[in-house]
Amino acid sequence: MAVRAAVAGASGYAGGELLRLLLAHPEVEIGALTGNSNAGQTLGALQPHLLPLAGRVLQETTPEVLAGHDVVFLALPHGQSAAVAEQLGPDVLVIDMGADFRLADAAAWEGFYGSPHAGTWPYGLPELPGARAALEGSKRVAVPGCYPTAVSLALFPAYAAGLAEPEAVIVAASGTSGAGKAPKPHLLGSEVMGSMSPYGVGGGHRHTPEITQNLSAAAGGPVSVSFTPTLAPMPRGILATCSAKATDGVTAESLRAAYEKAFADEPFVHLLPEDQWPATASVYGSNAVQVQVAHDTAAGRIIVISAIDNLTKGTAGGAVQSMNIALGLDETTGLTTIGVAP
Amino acid sequence: MAVRAAVAGASGYAGGELLRLLLAHPEVEIGALTGNSNAGQTLGALQPHLLPLAGRVLQETTPEVLAGHDVVFLALPHGQSAAVAEQLGPDVLVIDMGADFRLADAAAWEGFYGSPHAGTWPYGLPELPGARAALEGSKRVAVPGCYPTAVSLALFPAYAAGLAEPEAVIVAASGTSGAGKAPKPHLLGSEVMGSMSPYGVGGGHRHTPEITQNLSAAAGGPVSVSFTPTLAPMPRGILATCSAKATDGVTAESLRAAYEKAFADEPFVHLLPEDQWPATASVYGSNAVQVQVAHDTAAGRIIVISAIDNLTKGTAGGAVQSMNIALGLDETTGLTTIGVAP
Amino acid sequence: MAVRAAVAGASGYAGGELLRLLLAHPEVEIGALTGNSNAGQTLGALQPHLLPLAGRVLQETTPEVLAGHDVVFLALPHGQSAAVAEQLGPDVLVIDMGADFRLADAAAWEGFYGSPHAGTWPYGLPELPGARAALEGSKRVAVPGCYPTAVSLALFPAYAAGLAEPEAVIVAASGTSGAGKAPKPHLLGSEVMGSMSPYGVGGGHRHTPEITQNLSAAAGGPVSVSFTPTLAPMPRGILATCSAKATDGVTAESLRAAYEKAFADEPFVHLLPEDQWPATASVYGSNAVQVQVAHDTAAGRIIVISAIDNLTKGTAGGAVQSMNIALGLDETTGLTTIGVAP
Amino acid sequence: MAVRAAVAGASGYAGGELLRLLLAHPEVEIGALTGNSNAGQTLGALQPHLLPLAGRVLQETTPEVLAGHDVVFLALPHGQSAAVAEQLGPDVLVIDMGADFRLADAAAWEGFYGSPHAGTWPYGLPELPGARAALEGSKRVAVPGCYPTAVSLALFPAYAAGLAEPEAVIVAASGTSGAGKAPKPHLLGSEVMGSMSPYGVGGGHRHTPEITQNLSAAAGGPVSVSFTPTLAPMPRGILATCSAKATDGVTAESLRAAYEKAFADEPFVHLLPEDQWPATASVYGSNAVQVQVAHDTAAGRIIVISAIDNLTKGTAGGAVQSMNIALGLDETTGLTTIGVAP
Repeated sequence: MAVRAAVAGASGYAGGELLRLLLAHPEVEIGALTGNSNAGQTLGALQPHLLPLAGRVLQETTPEVLAGHDVVFLALPHGQSAAVAEQLGPDVLVIDMGADFRLADAAAWEGFYGSPHAGTWPYGLPELPGARAALEGSKRVAVPGCYPTAVSLALFPAYAAGLAEPEAVIVAASGTSGAGKAPKPHLLGSEVMGSMSPYGVGGGHRHTPEITQNLSAAAGGPVSVSFTPTLAPMPRGILATCSAKATDGVTAESLRAAYEKAFADEPFVHLLPEDQWPATASVYGSNAVQVQVAHDTAAGRIIVISAIDNLTKGTAGGAVQSMNIALGLDETTGLTTIGVAP
Repeated sequence: MAVRAAVAGASGYAGGELLRLLLAHPEVEIGALTGNSNAGQTLGALQPHLLPLAGRVLQETTPEVLAGHDVVFLALPHGQSAAVAEQLGPDVLVIDMGADFRLADAAAWEGFYGSPHAGTWPYGLPELPGARAALEGSKRVAVPGCYPTAVSLALFPAYAAGLAEPEAVIVAASGTSGAGKAPKPHLLGSEVMGSMSPYGVGGGHRHTPEITQNLSAAAGGPVSVSFTPTLAPMPRGILATCSAKATDGVTAESLRAAYEKAFADEPFVHLLPEDQWPATASVYGSNAVQVQVAHDTAAGRIIVISAIDNLTKGTAGGAVQSMNIALGLDETTGLTTIGVAP
Repeated sequence: MAVRAAVAGASGYAGGELLRLLLAHPEVEIGALTGNSNAGQTLGALQPHLLPLAGRVLQETTPEVLAGHDVVFLALPHGQSAAVAEQLGPDVLVIDMGADFRLADAAAWEGFYGSPHAGTWPYGLPELPGARAALEGSKRVAVPGCYPTAVSLALFPAYAAGLAEPEAVIVAASGTSGAGKAPKPHLLGSEVMGSMSPYGVGGGHRHTPEITQNLSAAAGGPVSVSFTPTLAPMPRGILATCSAKATDGVTAESLRAAYEKAFADEPFVHLLPEDQWPATASVYGSNAVQVQVAHDTAAGRIIVISAIDNLTKGTAGGAVQSMNIALGLDETTGLTTIGVAP
Repeated sequence: MAVRAAVAGASGYAGGELLRLLLAHPEVEIGALTGNSNAGQTLGALQPHLLPLAGRVLQETTPEVLAGHDVVFLALPHGQSAAVAEQLGPDVLVIDMGADFRLADAAAWEGFYGSPHAGTWPYGLPELPGARAALEGSKRVAVPGCYPTAVSLALFPAYAAGLAEPEAVIVAASGTSGAGKAPKPHLLGSEVMGSMSPYGVGGGHRHTPEITQNLSAAAGGPVSVSFTPTLAPMPRGILATCSAKATDGVTAESLRAAYEKAFADEPFVHLLPEDQWPATASVYGSNAVQVQVAHDTAAGRIIVISAIDNLTKGTAGGAVQSMNIALGLDETTGLTTIGVAP
């Protein structure tokens, strides 16, 4: 019996990627597709790469349209999910791809998003300690942000194993799809091709408190986070370069052992062989995470680098993975670790 | 019972794309992988996006290694397939992704490739008139070149329906993976990013006789072909802009009707709605072909534009599609019309 | 004594490129800069690459602001130049970088632009027969479109020498800056990187009548033009692939001789050595035009390929070159044939 | 009286960029051009963007060929400069664009480069404390590496002013031209477009000791450096994200004041207005450095981000700037702070 899924926000990049994955998911039947400003248009005009859905027409995002599904994915602007979720009833699995329910700290939410905190849902990054169990059977899931996915998976094993001092420094490069489909001058192809540029520098990016939350939980105490995101001239992908001072006694061997152990049973996280480094091209369109670690003895730091596809593992793939767990399906159903390269 | 497949030439772009598709093919079990200069290396080092095969080691391309498979794919340099194919026996399905067996005209072969003509095998572009039937049950398949795939699918309906004068003018842009993985200065990222450039101008490209062969067959008489390939700053994709003088009496309606009819039952060729034009991004990683037609009444020409992924429908996807037909499987098994975008 | 120049429309790509060139022009002093929707902003925020002008503030485009200059450049949306030009007086050199005064055929203007025809000014492509003389001392210049620049320079020698039949087929690829700086969804970096796509197919592009006008003038009779523009994943550059049936008796030698003769004294047009083909990267940021010709004897066609920078020779460089001629300065002042590569 | 300049290594990216700048330098006459493996070829074939030099033929790199010039630029592989320099005589200005004479610490040189240390020359980064004076009248100049240029200019003011703890963490993204023109598989366009990847992680990059040397000099004591370079999908540009713990009492105001003071008289370093961040596109082809600073009070760190063109200010522009100083010319002669954008 198929799982019937609706997607609210089907015209954007997150919604499009989700539909790409759901079309390949053997247990899912795609139901209602909504998109407010684009309601009435065909998906063929908005997502021309999704040929099997080309004739589908977007509807308004209303409780009536979203009713009657087993799963409802919300790919809405930040702050709009709570109102929609309330109307869906407790038995529907609601998977929020926005930020509304990611943070436990109401003050952090309000400081970074400027609106009242809506609550906290089980967090859709099953690789984190305890996260998988919280997702099993849950009817509500908060899908992590793309940067927090890349960064948290890179650093949590070091913090969980006590190998890193609680001051993390992170510089991450993201493809432009992370900035969404709303046209803005600085996102024009003419502007981004050939250019690297930072934004949200100095702690201002909204993903900072989410990263802090995850690393602090892994460390069992507060971790301070210096996070600098940069925009890279590519459509997809995140490369996160993460480092912290090594605690006393850390060696290259103990560092690697901690990561081997942390990811030994993970289907999507791949610690690369010692001489190989992650590249975003290798995870293009896949749900895989590539990770590599190094111990810089001269600087006394551990460096961990991860690569993900921001739209797949960083958004829609993480959402499908969480859905699988919540519904009791095999976690890897409909997902792949095979990238599209070159 | 699984189809056991070997891939000779697994380290290049065609071989890598083929493996990406075979990994997702429910009827195929991946057997021997070979690559002469890279024999002994792991696939993880050469094709880091194919995580499930990361530990596989490349072997030498020998008859012994390739023995015992149901299907052998040859992704070898032009001119090397015949010698390998001879040793494989008549009961093995051999699918040549090189040029060796594409041309019926021995003189054209020798003029463009400079070596003796090896023969002619059933042509792996099932959408062409008569091609599908020739592939059914065949033990030998010559996979078309990437440009001939894009161009022939764009123009054969016009020639088959008598709508175009027999002088075709084609300008096509290809992503850099079409030029292969052997490092050459003009293919460096520093050179190709930000640059469009032509090559093989004036009839010199090796795909010209193959296009001529296909269009002449569709027209039932000789078609002259002016073909100019250009290198575009993107990894994948072909956009083929094809035109010819319209024959007397052609109208926009008759033109469109001919294309609707030609592609009505084709699972992979998609004639776009009238106001929409192909884009290579929409077929990234998919086996789909997007086509659109126009009748320029002022210039008296029909213009047909097609977009494919040169590595998928243009090479490895075409190979898998042909394998499915040759083996009696559903033609679409393991293939998708869903692109990875943006 | 410096030439004092104002730029109306300084916030867009054409205006920015013009300022880049004027800053390097030894005879020009940059005066008023205007931009309606951006009036009041600093140029540093809008054109951060023009550091020497970072503190300049954009003004409204009014006759008062534009008064008191020797030259006024109009980089305005199509259809807005005539009203501004009228108010500038007959003694000011007005250089229109828009389309308003390019076409001699009022019906063609009205058909393609949908507004009344404003008139015809001397055409700022001095390499065309007779054009240079018309520019000398002129107080009004219509700068050509970027595609017409690339295409007309590629084909006029063949038409002027009677080497080509009067049916030209042109496919050109342009960088995204040709589409301007106004944010539109299909121009987002996420959409254009990795993608080639056509637009204005079938004769619909506004540059078609301008190309037709130029080639017909060179041929001394009507030339029909099939023109297909495509959007390429790069910020700048046009590669124009142009062909036509060769007239009787054309040889590779006669073709090359005609082009050598046509460009022998041209400072900016460079016929490449016989084994070398144009690449847009080679003319990045320069006013040079690279051209190469071929005679395809099998198809009976001549193929001419040109590469320009759409913003430099295709817009702002052409404007400065025309200004130099109109003012009696050396034509090459402030311009270069040196590209920025790789 | 013109300065006569020879360039050894004119076929590579550094040599090509140097020639681009020298062609625009009013005091320089370009003399001998050499390139060993390419000797005998025309520059037009190797550097097709340098049209004015298209007919020049490369010669062998011999003392005879290099004799008779006022300045000799060495754009040779690391380790080859010393032998050539020895033969040039003490009165010739020799500007080494390789690494041979950058490091004062012979052990660091031998550890990172694996060959005997050749010596230490005045360092061609005039913005560093004391550097300009050492260059004046010097006959030998060691041009800095591209990363050290970007990083040292970003961080030296903080260390010189005592605002940063002596543990710097740097993540930098570079365009592919930084990796040179020798064709290698991982530098193919197919591989780099759409991909971000790190290399030399954990302190292994050869620019690490050079950065350490510069920052330690500014701090007046040892600074440890964690440096991670990444390869970005663009031809040119470096974006360096640099941070360190703030010392006690640092404020956003004191931080900004230190940078304003450090760069107040620098013609090429531009501290951006407070709300604007560097982008590599803005310095494309220019000798400018864009810098911005932030104080992250939550993380207790200062973050400084700089953008340069790795080939211009990072290599050839730095070389010309140093030449100007050494020869007593105006430091900015032949150089620009105007980028080519978009």
